[in-house]
Order: sequence, then C-alpha cells, then structure tokens
Amino acid sequence: MSEEVRFDHARAGRTGMPEVVFAERKTRAQIALCLREQYAGAGYAFATRVAPEDGPDLAAEVPGGRYDETARIVVSGGLPRSGVRVGVVCAGTSDLPVAAEAAATLHWLGHDVYERYDAGVAGIHRILEAREELERCRVVVVAAGMEGALPSVVAGLIGAPVIAVPTSVGYGASFGGLAALLAMLNACAPGIGVVNIDNGFGAAALAHKIVLARVNA
Amino acid sequence: MSEEVRFDHARAGRTGMPEVVFAERKTRAQIALCLREQYAGAGYAFATRVAPEDGPDLAAEVPGGRYDETARIVVSGGLPRSGVRVGVVCAGTSDLPVAAEAAATLHWLGHDVYERYDAGVAGIHRILEAREELERCRVVVVAAGMEGALPSVVAGLIGAPVIAVPTSVGYGASFGGLAALLAMLNACAPGIGVVNIDNGFGAAALAHKIVLARVNA
Amino acid sequence: MSEEVRFDHARAGRTGMPEVVFAERKTRAQIALCLREQYAGAGYAFATRVAPEDGPDLAAEVPGGRYDETARIVVSGGLPRSGVRVGVVCAGTSDLPVAAEAAATLHWLGHDVYERYDAGVAGIHRILEAREELERCRVVVVAAGMEGALPSVVAGLIGAPVIAVPTSVGYGASFGGLAALLAMLNACAPGIGVVNIDNGFGAAALAHKIVLARVNA
Amino acid sequence: MSEEVRFDHARAGRTGMPEVVFAERKTRAQIALCLREQYAGAGYAFATRVAPEDGPDLAAEVPGGRYDETARIVVSGGLPRSGVRVGVVCAGTSDLPVAAEAAATLHWLGHDVYERYDAGVAGIHRILEAREELERCRVVVVAAGMEGALPSVVAGLIGAPVIAVPTSVGYGASFGGLAALLAMLNACAPGIGVVNIDNGFGAAALAHKIVLARVNA
Amino acid sequence: MSEEVRFDHARAGRTGMPEVVFAERKTRAQIALCLREQYAGAGYAFATRVAPEDGPDLAAEVPGGRYDETARIVVSGGLPRSGVRVGVVCAGTSDLPVAAEAAATLHWLGHDVYERYDAGVAGIHRILEAREELERCRVVVVAAGMEGALPSVVAGLIGAPVIAVPTSVGYGASFGGLAALLAMLNACAPGIGVVNIDNGFGAAALAHKIVLARVNA
Amino acid sequence: MSEEVRFDHARAGRTGMPEVVFAERKTRAQIALCLREQYAGAGYAFATRVAPEDGPDLAAEVPGGRYDETARIVVSGGLPRSGVRVGVVCAGTSDLPVAAEAAATLHWLGHDVYERYDAGVAGIHRILEAREELERCRVVVVAAGMEGALPSVVAGLIGAPVIAVPTSVGYGASFGGLAALLAMLNACAPGIGVVNIDNGFGAAALAHKIVLARVNA
Amino acid sequence: MSEEVRFDHARAGRTGMPEVVFAERKTRAQIALCLREQYAGAGYAFATRVAPEDGPDLAAEVPGGRYDETARIVVSGGLPRSGVRVGVVCAGTSDLPVAAEAAATLHWLGHDVYERYDAGVAGIHRILEAREELERCRVVVVAAGMEGALPSVVAGLIGAPVIAVPTSVGYGASFGGLAALLAMLNACAPGIGVVNIDNGFGAAALAHKIVLARVNA
Amino acid sequence: MSEEVRFDHARAGRTGMPEVVFAERKTRAQIALCLREQYAGAGYAFATRVAPEDGPDLAAEVPGGRYDETARIVVSGGLPRSGVRVGVVCAGTSDLPVAAEAAATLHWLGHDVYERYDAGVAGIHRILEAREELERCRVVVVAAGMEGALPSVVAGLIGAPVIAVPTSVGYGASFGGLAALLAMLNACAPGIGVVNIDNGFGAAALAHKIVLARVNA
Repeated sequence: MSEEVRFDHARAGRTGMPEVVFAERKTRAQIALCLREQYAGAGYAFATRVAPEDGPDLAAEVPGGRYDETARIVVSGGLPRSGVRVGVVCAGTSDLPVAAEAAATLHWLGHDVYERYDAGVAGIHRILEAREELERCRVVVVAAGMEGALPSVVAGLIGAPVIAVPTSVGYGASFGGLAALLAMLNACAPGIGVVNIDNGFGAAALAHKIVLARVNA
Repeated sequence: MSEEVRFDHARAGRTGMPEVVFAERKTRAQIALCLREQYAGAGYAFATRVAPEDGPDLAAEVPGGRYDETARIVVSGGLPRSGVRVGVVCAGTSDLPVAAEAAATLHWLGHDVYERYDAGVAGIHRILEAREELERCRVVVVAAGMEGALPSVVAGLIGAPVIAVPTSVGYGASFGGLAALLAMLNACAPGIGVVNIDNGFGAAALAHKIVLARVNA
Repeated sequence: MSEEVRFDHARAGRTGMPEVVFAERKTRAQIALCLREQYAGAGYAFATRVAPEDGPDLAAEVPGGRYDETARIVVSGGLPRSGVRVGVVCAGTSDLPVAAEAAATLHWLGHDVYERYDAGVAGIHRILEAREELERCRVVVVAAGMEGALPSVVAGLIGAPVIAVPTSVGYGASFGGLAALLAMLNACAPGIGVVNIDNGFGAAALAHKIVLARVNA
Repeated sequence: MSEEVRFDHARAGRTGMPEVVFAERKTRAQIALCLREQYAGAGYAFATRVAPEDGPDLAAEVPGGRYDETARIVVSGGLPRSGVRVGVVCAGTSDLPVAAEAAATLHWLGHDVYERYDAGVAGIHRILEAREELERCRVVVVAAGMEGALPSVVAGLIGAPVIAVPTSVGYGASFGGLAALLAMLNACAPGIGVVNIDNGFGAAALAHKIVLARVNA
Repeated sequence: MSEEVRFDHARAGRTGMPEVVFAERKTRAQIALCLREQYAGAGYAFATRVAPEDGPDLAAEVPGGRYDETARIVVSGGLPRSGVRVGVVCAGTSDLPVAAEAAATLHWLGHDVYERYDAGVAGIHRILEAREELERCRVVVVAAGMEGALPSVVAGLIGAPVIAVPTSVGYGASFGGLAALLAMLNACAPGIGVVNIDNGFGAAALAHKIVLARVNA
Repeated sequence: MSEEVRFDHARAGRTGMPEVVFAERKTRAQIALCLREQYAGAGYAFATRVAPEDGPDLAAEVPGGRYDETARIVVSGGLPRSGVRVGVVCAGTSDLPVAAEAAATLHWLGHDVYERYDAGVAGIHRILEAREELERCRVVVVAAGMEGALPSVVAGLIGAPVIAVPTSVGYGASFGGLAALLAMLNACAPGIGVVNIDNGFGAAALAHKIVLARVNA
Repeated sequence: MSEEVRFDHARAGRTGMPEVVFAERKTRAQIALCLREQYAGAGYAFATRVAPEDGPDLAAEVPGGRYDETARIVVSGGLPRSGVRVGVVCAGTSDLPVAAEAAATLHWLGHDVYERYDAGVAGIHRILEAREELERCRVVVVAAGMEGALPSVVAGLIGAPVIAVPTSVGYGASFGGLAALLAMLNACAPGIGVVNIDNGFGAAALAHKIVLARVNA
Repeated sequence: MSEEVRFDHARAGRTGMPEVVFAERKTRAQIALCLREQYAGAGYAFATRVAPEDGPDLAAEVPGGRYDETARIVVSGGLPRSGVRVGVVCAGTSDLPVAAEAAATLHWLGHDVYERYDAGVAGIHRILEAREELERCRVVVVAAGMEGALPSVVAGLIGAPVIAVPTSVGYGASFGGLAALLAMLNACAPGIGVVNIDNGFGAAALAHKIVLARVNA
C-alpha cells in the first residue's frame, strides 16, 4: 500500500528535522522500500531500530549505506557539518546502545559529538573530571538506566541545557526504565528536558532543534 | 536551622539558572526567610507555588515585591532583558496557572513572552492561526492537560524546540496528569523535551538554558 | 469438549452483531472446528487474530475462505451490503494491522469503508485534507498508538461519532498502548467512544451497531 | 483575560455538539462569565460539574436558568426536541449523579430519556425486566461503578449501541473507578464504547452524535 | 540439595490440605524427585503447572500416574470420595485451562464436580439455565477473564459461597488478568472470596477447606 | 426518587445473605430512608460505613437501633443464633475498625465470634498462642494491613478456611492497602479467599455463606 | 479494649529494638494510654507521627516528656549512650521532617548523630565536603525525595552501610515518593538498604540494629 | 571501546566493596574481557547473572575460575576469611537461585554462611526451629517471593539486622515480585533494609558493609 511509505518530505523544511525510518514493527521489505524512497527524495537515508540480522542487507539498499551495530542504525549521507559540539554521556556498557543511537543521529545531523561513557554516579569523580569538556558543549544528552540520577548531577554542574534519556537498563523494580524515567522527571536541578525511555534518537532530534534555534530565531 | 535557607548563590554562575524559592511544604516564616536571604545576596527575589493566602504578605517582605495570583509567584526585580522571544501556549482556563507560571518565570529571566491561551486541539484552526507568531519564537513552551496532544501538533508545525508541560487538569483516567505526561513522552513528532506535571517553572528554566546556549557555546 | 464450540447463533438476532471466532489462545484444531461450525450454522465464517502460519490452512476449512494477512482475518461470505460509508483512519505503517482489522470487519458486515492511513498529527495538514471525505461517513474509526491524539483532532473537525482504538504501537512509556488509551479517554473533544487496545474488531462492531441504530429504532 | 471565555461558537455547526461550560477548576466568577457569554452567543447555557454551593447563584446569571443538584448542572433553554429515545441505566443510589448528568445532558440536547436506576448485576432479574424498554432506545448509556459489569450484560441483550460510563463509586481496589473502567474496556460483548470515569456528559455527547448520524450521513 | 524436596507431610493433618508439587520454575528432574518423594510418603502424587512436553514422562515417574493436558496436572491416586458436589463455571474455551485445573484438583481431593463451561455474561440466559444445578452445589468456583463479571452474577443468584478466579485471558487493558481481578474484588454481590490470577488450584483448595469445615467444626 | 431505596428483599431467600445499607456516598436522609424501609420489610436494620457524626441520630430512626462507633455500624435486631463459632483476628489498634465491622456483622447474622486482636507477625508467639481457639472456629476472618502476612501464617496453622481482608492501614508504599492486598493474593498457604480492602462486611458475608453451606447443601 | 495497648515489652530483649508508639490513626486518648503504659513498663516513652495539635498535651502525660515539632515525636528518657556515631543526611527544608525523625530516634536509642541537611545532588560539592565526616560514621541514613539520587552518590563515596529513606517530597510524577523509592531500589552503588517512604523511624531502627550487631554477634 | 571495561579498581578501597561484573545485557565477549581485566587488576574475578550456556566457557577465562549454576556466578579467588557468620534464609526451591547468589557472594567476600532454605511461613515451625542458629549470625539475608512475609517474621524473632530480598517467584498478582517488594517495605517489624527484586548480590554487598562496619568505625 503506497500510504505506508508516503514520506512527509516537507517536514525538514517545516520543522528543521527530517523524517526518518523507524524500523521497529516494520518488515524488512517495508524498511527497504522506505530507505529507497527516502534516498530518492532527499539524497540521504537514515533508519533507527534496525535489528542486527537485517542491518547489513538493508544498508546495501542505498548507495553508501552503512550499518552501525551498536546504535542499530542504517545510514547513508548526512546533513552539512554545523561545527557545533554536542555532548553525549552515559554510565557504561549497558546504556551504550541508547547513547550510541543519540551520538550517531547527531553526527548524521551534522554536529560534532563529545562522548563520555563511564560516568556512573557511584563513582562521582568521573563525571567531575568531564566537567570542563561538557562546558564546551552547546547541549548535553545524558542517558541513564537504573536510578537515573546522572542528569540531575550534570545539570547542577554546567550551563548547557540537558536532555535526559531514561534507558530500560535494570531489572526488578526498574520496571523497564520507569524508575529512571520518574527520577529524571523529578530531577531537583532545573533545566532538564526528558524524552521517552530508550529514545536516543528523540534526544538527538531535540538537541538538533536547540542547535538550530541559535541560527533561526 | 541555618541549613534550611543556605542558598547556593554560586549556582547561577555555574549553571546560568539562579536558585529560587519553592514555597510548597514550607511554612510562611521559612518562605519569608528565604526571600529575604535571596534578595540580600542577589538583589532579586523569586518564589513559586505561593498560596493566595500568603502571597500579598510575603511580597511585602522584599523591596518592590509583587504577587501574581494566577501564576502563584512572588517576584522582585529580575534579570536583564535578553530581547529573545519565547512562546507559551495552552488550551484554556484550566491550564492557565501552569502556563502563567512559565510565562512569569520567563519574563523574570529577561525574555519576551508570546502567549496564546486558547489553542485546544478540539479546535485545531486556533493553533494553526498562531503558527506564524510561533515561528518567530526561539523556543516554545506548551502546557496541556487531559490528552496532552498539543505539543505533538506544535512540534510538527514549527522549527523551534518544544518544551512540553503536562498539567494535572482532568479527572478520572487522567490520574492527576499521568495521561498527559505519557502522551507527551510518546509524541510522534521528534524534538520535544518533557518536564514534570504542572512544572511551569521547570519548563521556563529549560527554555532559559536553551536561550543562553546561543550566547555561551 | 463440545462446549468449546457451542456458538450463540441467536446472538445476531438479539444484538445485531453475529458471534465470531477469536483465534488467540485457541489451537489450530479448535479454530478449524469453530469455523466449520459457524459456516454450517450461518452460511459465513469469520475469525480474527489468526496467526500468519495458520491463516492459509484455516481459510481452506470453509468454502470460499480467504486469509487477509495484514488484518490477520479468515473470512468467507458476509452480510448484505448496507450502502453506508464508514471511515477508518490511522497514522501509518505501524497502526495498519489494527486499522485493517477494523476495515475488513466492516466490509464483512456489509459497509463501504473509506480508508486514510497517513494521518499522523505531526503532519496535521494530512488529516485536514481528509476532512471532506470524513464528513461523508456515518461514523469514523480512528486507530492511533504512541500519544493517541488523532481521535481528539478528528472529533473536533467533523460531526460523525468517533470510535477511538488505541494501538500497542510505541515503546518505553507507551506501556503497551496504555499511553494512547489514557489519552483517548481524556480527549478534550466530546463524542468519542473508546475500545480496548488493538481492538479493531470491537471498533467495527460498535460502528456496525451505530449504523444499524438508524434502521432499527 | 478574554481568552478564558472565548467560546468556539462554530463548534456546534462543525461537529453537531455545542461547546459547554465545564465548571470544575473554574472560579465562580469565571463560570458566571462563561454562562453569560454562552447565552449571549447561542441563546442557551449549559454548565456541568457545578458545586451545590454555587449552583443556585449561577443559575440566576442567565434568563430561565435552573440548577439540577443531583446532576450538578446549570441549564437554560435547550435544543429542539428530536423525538428520539435514549436509555440511561445504572445500579442505584451511588451511581445516580453520573447517570443524572447523562440524562440531563441528553434532555437538553433534545432527546427523550428512558431511565432505569436499579439494575445492579447482583439482582440480574431487574435488568432482564427492562429489556423490552431498552430495545426501544436508539442508544443506551450504562453507568456502573465497582466491578462495572452492567454494560457487558446490556450489550448482550439488545441491539442498540451501548455507551459505558465507569463511575468512581467503590473503595479500596476500585482505585477511583479504575476497576470499572478496565472491566468495560475488556467487555466480552462487542459493540460498547467507553468514556472517561464519571463522564456522564461525554456519554451523552456521544449518544447525541450517534442520533445525529441517522440524520446527517 | 535435600531441602528442595523436604515435604511438609504433616500439613494435611494440620490444615486438611496436603502439600502438592508446584512445577513452575522447577526443572524436570526436580519435579520428578518431588513426585516420587510425595508418593513414597503419602501414597498419592499431584503436581500442577506441568508443561505439555514434560507431562507424559513425569506421569511415568509414579505408579498409576496420568497427565491431564488441559489442566496441566500430573496425578496418581487421590483422597477418599466425599460425596459432596462442587460447581466449576467459566465462559468458554479460553478460560478452560484454569477451570480444568480447579476441577481436576477437586476431583483428586475426593469431591464430585459439576462443570458448566459456556456461561459468558454476554449471553446471560446460559448462566440462568444453570441456576438449579448450581443450587445443588455446596460451593461454586467461578473462573473468568476479560471483565470478570461472572462471579457477581452467580453470587447474586445462589446461596452457596462463590470462589472467584480471575484468569489472564484477554489482551490490551486486561493487563494479564488485572482487570478481571479488580472486578472480582469490587463485586457488588457479597459472599465472594477471590484467589490469585489463574489460580485454579488455590480455588479448589479453598473449596475443599469449606467442604471440610462442615465435617470438622 | 423511589428507585434509590428499592430493596431487593428477595435476596436473603435467594442467596442467604440479606441486602444491607451501605452508607458511604449517601446523604443522612437517604440512609435514614433506607433503614426505615429495611426495618419495615424485614424486621431488622443494618447499615455499614456510618460516620460518627451521623451514627447516633440514624440509630434512633429504627426501634432498638444502636450505633457501634468502632465498627461504624447502625444495627437493630438480627438473625437467629446459629451456635456456630467464627474467628476474627487482626494485629492491633489500627486494624480494629475493619475487624470490628466483620465481628459486628457476624454477630448480627447470628454467629458466635471469637476475637483476637493482638496477633501481629512481628510477635509470632501471639498467634501461636491462639491456635487452639482458632481450631474451634468453622471459618476464620483475618484482617491485616501493612505487609498483610497474617493470613498466610494462620492458614498454615489450622484447618478452617481463611478469609483475608487487607486493610488500608499503612503509609507510603502501602498504597492504601494495595501492598497487603497483593500479599494476600500471593499467599503461599492455599485455602485463602481474599475480599476488597477494608471490606470487613464482605468477609463476614462470605463467612456466613460458608456456615450456611453446612446447612443447605 | 485492653488488647489495644498490650505492649510486647519482651521485644527489646528479643530483637534489641523496643516497641514504640506509632500515633497515626490512633485517637489522642489511645496514644496517651500507650505512652503511660510504655513508661510504666519500661521507664521511657517514645511516640512517632504525633500531630502538632496533640504533641504538647501528650508530652505532659509522662514524666519528663517533651515534643519535638519538626520530628513529630514525643519522648521521655532514652537508652544508655553508645558512643557510636551515625550519620543523617538530606537535601534541605522539605526532607527535614523525615531526617529529623531518624535523628531524634537515633538519639533516643543512645547514639551520637552527625547531621548534614543541605546535600542535594544539584550542588554535588556539598556532599563531597561532608565526605570526611561521613567516613567517621558507622552507618549513614540518607533521606531524599524527588529523584532520590543522594543514596547512590553517598554509597559510592564511603565505606559505611547506607540506609536510604525515600520521602514523599515532590509533586506530579513523584507519585507520593514512588519515584524516589524506585530510584533507591535501583541504585547502581551496592550496599544500600531501603525502607518505606517517609519512614525515618524505620531507618533509625535498622541503623540501631546494625550498631548492636557489633556488640552482640 | 575501552570505556566499556574501565574498572573502578579504587572502589574497594573507597567503599569496602569491590566492583564486580554484572553479566546481564553484556555479550559473552564483553563479559570475558571484563573478567580478564578484573583478574589482572585485583587477583580475583567475580561475575553475576551469567547464563548457563555461557558459564563454563567464561569460567575458563580466568585462572581457577568456576561456574556455580544455581547462583549463576563465575568466580575465581576471593577475599580473606573474616570469621563472621551471616545467615541466608528462604522458603524453598523457587527462591533458591536468589538465595544462592547471596550466599556465593558472601562466601567470596570472606564470610561464613549459615543457610536455611525450607522456611516458608505456611509452616511457621520451620523458621522457629532455626531461631537459635540465626541468633548466632551478625546479619541475616532473607529472600522471599509470593507474599514476602518471611522477613517480618525473622526480624521479630532475632536481634540481628535483616536484609530483605524480594524474589520474582510467583505469578498473576505477584507482578514479577512487586507484591513481595511492597510487603517487605511495609513490614511491621522494624530493622529491615530492602534491596531490589532478585538482587541477591546487593543483599550480600549490604551484609558485607554491615560486617565491615564493626571493624572500621
């Protein structure tokens, strides 16, 4: 059915953020069709939540396509470089897929990415060490699972806006990321915007709009 | 106990966002003490969630103090004007206190505020009418209760980052704003940062940090 | 055990809505038995939630049987054409199975179906374009996952009753469709009846009863 | 602020359902202003959720105004009589306010209302006695608290569409009407549309749209 | 480790209800060990929640062992016949495993079981037909999923105590049986005792204790 | 409206349990009307959940009426003595109102009541001391708040069926009795029937039906 | 009824922790009776959760009684001094009542208390400043509301066991302390024991048992 | 990426509790790398939540490595023996993996472990029999699923601090261990610290810190 892949190509012009392909719940054939249509219309392609068993084949559907297994992203081309620096921070191995999704999206959108992936609050000196680098970012994405405390600490340290991404990392009373989500919504440090659980892409999209805001208005 | 009113006066320098007085759960005496200490240290005073029966008396505690009954804010002085325009949108009467808290905070932080308070999605033409004005804002705060759909619609219309504030307006299956909160976290339009239920102040703080990001980094 | 397939054949006469086969949690053998018994008693057969691996074989159990893979329905025959038009609207690929279940059920019940499957609220112009067509429907089924905002917008645009079907499309704080369900129950536009998550069949059944109401009472 | 009472007077033309005044969370002065503005524009006035201590005074704000204490409604005038009969059913004393809100709204919208208020499922003979009368209604609103079972039973008995209204009647594990709400969403009888907890007005609005559907499309 | 299979053989003497083997989360080897130890000490064996792939092999572990696939029970021997009649009621195919678990347990405990498995409330005449038979039972177990309304109806019809078993049958807002559980706890008919979701065994155990109460005290 | 007080006087004959007056959410006038109607039809009167400020006045509405402040019950007359002994157990002061409601209801229904109100599991010797007395009861009602552990312990000690009543006693993560309710539904000792939170009356009604079961079937 | 005030005076000998009076849900008369009985048996008295309007009067019931309004505790006498130091930490004004309850209980139990009440994670330097003092405590109680992050940070800094007390401080998505509770249960730093929301007394009791453990075993 | 395995080797010195490898959500290659790095830096290795299919191979990665299948732990070496005795108690087979994780961790940390794995509250005599042995432990870990009542009983019997571990054992209304978790947080016996669901390791870590507290402060 053609509706399924009718891209809203005007969206980038309208909102600054291009429509991309969200692969979850789509068949491989549907994703392939989307990627080709997107590439034909825009000269680039970008799909998130691509399963490892589909990634390499789908990357081959578009010229210059590549699959990033950690971020689970198929990408081809990208937006012009902005020269702006955005931070992406998380605690460690388990939060990596979400942080990597944010970082890869930001890179595709044209931004420089400062990454710091060992900053759990149980070793508070590690985030303190990163402070100076974070001060040099225009906006910082912070991904955290379990108790979700890292955004509060970061937002109390630096001046940049913080985008908090709860991850589903945890078990038991983490309830699939609900614990981290609630913690971030209740952060005692003001100036934090929260996105959905595991939504690294959404965090990057918001960061991108914040960067653009400097240019446009 | 002196700890109770020990202000973190360095916070504004560190994070760009001054510490303010959150009046809920404080006695009138505690709030008064906080306001005076804040004024003494910073030359301004700002308290949110001040009950109507306390507002006028507390406003009198600091030179030039004033109580905004809709926003439930006591304010004296403010930051220098930035010349930047920030939008605040909501659906109507019931969401007004939250929208007004955001608007009053933004004004105190030095920004120009564009307000539009009749934009419920059941009359979609109203938000469409406001589109041009919203395009001229660097960031837009959208407060909504009930089904919380307005941020999705706004973020699909304009390029500015959207800060979504769920309100506790509703009854029954709104569960005190939970319905609107979940809706906003699941918005299909990317580029939305969500804050806590009824947290107009937090939305303004995030908007402020986004505006500052233009200047600092 | 014979109780398992004892159809309430009198139900159609009593309530206007024939009993059908709900395949979930039934074995293939149980479903086959139900289909044959239904066909024998009523001259048609209709089963929902039929898994793709069972569909074609089960369709072969009844004369003229056919399997609709998107809607996951096995169908044979149907009710007389009513000449009444019912709308089915959703946002895109992911909500398609639920919308298709509603549309296929409505078709089997004898109604004409107007379908529009690209109407996400992040591109609000698309639902506005469909307005005229929707005005010509006697009732409109609106399926939406994620923030579930579409029914509010549709019910604010047109005069027909709206039946809202939350879908389990989403992740994280969508909690399996709970976010969309709560949003729909809290819709600010009056005149919306909500059915269970992913219940495309139930939405069609209610639409059918609404159409019949014109004839009967 | 004038936005607060800016009525969407065009809504009745657009959707068949006039905008009304929802009094909860509004001050008495705001409600009075709304009622007068509504009366001035439309020639009638209608406000729901009006507290008993405000009702009589607010009724006096508009010509011919009257306060219905059980339904908590202020009303003046109404739509032309339709001659169509709508049923309203509940179990007893505790559900009465919600049922009465639905009935009063339907009456104001021009319909005849058949009321039956003693039909709890613990005495199943009572709803069976009402069956013949219910068959003569074009649509039936069923309000129920506690286990919320009544809509399932009614929808299995008659051909008319059923609108289910969970009420917050109950205690403990009723969780403010959640138990009844979930029960209704999971009703085994198809053809039921559910509205928010205690939303008698919304149920009436949906019934009204269903009645109009006969006329319009 | 011997603790794993240390039976509390004194429990039957103390409480009237023998300890049995709950197979879920146990390995096949652990279950086999339990069955043999139970048979050695008590002369009978009884295990619930036995998976179909393990059932036949495990039945062979004890003399006269048999596997009931619907009830998912391995049984050998049983208690002396009591001559007392207990009812087990449910709506249809999907609730059958839970009802069958209750019925098989009651039979093993020595009671006569009256079964009625087609009594959904959407066809209320079916439970009314069973009334006379149910009046002849000393206690009635009622299993229901979805809206869980059946126990309320039964308890309003007959004098015997009703044991309500919510089942996890349903989808979406059934939340794994939570909807039915809450409905049963809020039943408007008094005299209903509720057990855990899908706990057919527990319902039978309570029924057994109720039957014994006649004899003992 | 006469429906409000239409008693189902046939219920006692049908189910063994007379209909009573549930005072919550009723006005004093409505309760008085119910009590008088009940007394006129049945020769006794019984109302639960009567607020202390209404109790004495309402007791005066019926001949021989009396208000029990702990149990919050108005009672006049009662059923003939059965000579059967029923146990009521709880931990202490806070659970007393619920236990007292159960005990007063059982007494009114004609049974002898053994009460033990100091049996918290933190002092396990106390319930062990009561074991012999509990063995002499035909059924035992156990009310518990907080962690709700007492029913498991009692059901493991004695042969009589146990009716568990979670109470709303507790704070924080007790969530109004939810913690105790869930604990009781998950009791590791079989043979427990659970009723709604704080439903001392319902527990007594079930105990009454269990006692009657000895006589009837 | 004498059961209501039957103290388990043997508990202190058995468990090291004396039984105390929990005043919530008790009448003033009941509390007074408890305090007198406790004093008579043990030579000290201690009641928590005493409302300000009752505190002074109740303090007068026992020799040397005193009311601590912040901690809401009535106390007379106490256990011998242990010379052991226990830390109590929280973020500020709003968490003070819970922290003060813990501190007052610890003092009454004979321990020295190190208090630090300005340690919110949004100003991470403040808890770092306290590190050396905290290292000198045998166990540390950390009370926190909102995002509940403080225990994770403290447990990552020092060697002493940490007892985490979530407080109900917050609003909206804090859900009465649930957000903080979940955060603490999911803390990434091991070695944290969590108690109920607002349970300052319970935290102190656990700390006391930990201190005693040094002496006893 | 080297960040993934950057151990915080200083943590043991800082907090007394060494950092270990949490295998869940890590690939086999990541776990192997972590184990080798840990062994190289500390002379021991310890990983929890290792799946049975990975266990033996991973154990071979470090000298003297061994896989404990019940506890799902890979271990090599350990801390010096402390001579202190810690208790670990649970009800039976299903809770064993969690109890075994706690016991194996405690053993690795150098402590003697007293284990009692048949102490369900439905046979209360069994925990009473263990009382004397438990009195000789400095701290006791109690794991329980279902109704989670065991910690309350143990904490009422002995003087040592109790660490409660809810397990996910159960079904239906256990909601993955939520029932047990809430019960433990609401325990009526003071002096209980609760850890996350199934967190046997965390319980052991807290016990270890409590033991160390005797030595350090």
